[in-house]
Amino acid sequence: MIANTPPPPYYAVIFTSIRTSHLEGYGDMATRMVELAHGQAGFLGVESARDSHSDRYAGAGPFGITVSYWQSLEAIRQWKQHAEHLIAQQTGRDRWYASYKTRICLVERDYAFESA
Amino acid sequence: MIANTPPPPYYAVIFTSIRTSHLEGYGDMATRMVELAHGQAGFLGVESARDSHSDRYAGAGPFGITVSYWQSLEAIRQWKQHAEHLIAQQTGRDRWYASYKTRICLVERDYAFESA
Repeated sequence: MIANTPPPPYYAVIFTSIRTSHLEGYGDMATRMVELAHGQAGFLGVESARDSHSDRYAGAGPFGITVSYWQSLEAIRQWKQHAEHLIAQQTGRDRWYASYKTRICLVERDYAFESA
Repeated sequence: MIANTPPPPYYAVIFTSIRTSHLEGYGDMATRMVELAHGQAGFLGVESARDSHSDRYAGAGPFGITVSYWQSLEAIRQWKQHAEHLIAQQTGRDRWYASYKTRICLVERDYAFESA
């Protein structure tokens, strides 16, 4: 669940989204995209959480954060241009997402904690 | 809910965590830390989502991602060393978190979508 990434530097794509109330097809697409990403060159891992307590935010759908990790900007570019992913992105804008923000980041340092 | 960050470059701290079943004090601490962060020099925003479907992950507590955004590494360093935050970090390791990973990142590019 916490991605087992190699030592930095590597890249992260932070995808923050607010969903619409249109649910049909969303779950299947999300599962398929994670599956596809795993097969991409330079893919290092993915972490995802969605807040189901949308009543905390008046009028808005569920709020989610997905972070995927990549070896290089080139690997991110190829994933963004993947044919099936392009269709998912377009369908996302048409139906599933009220809004989103994507941030491309260079991970410079990381540290971990595991309880005894 | 989606942080209204300035144009890149700026910094992101991705904090990915798995909670224990020890809930006492956690909510108050989380609220207080967001409040405190807002008052820190160089703070640009925060986004947070926690997956309550912990049954998806056999044996593990809720999985969460919090991303905070900062103007500089120096702002991140000062936040990490804030006295009240240091206590929260220690109590987190003692009680609330089974494991976590923190990643310090330079946001190089971002783009947004808003449905019409």
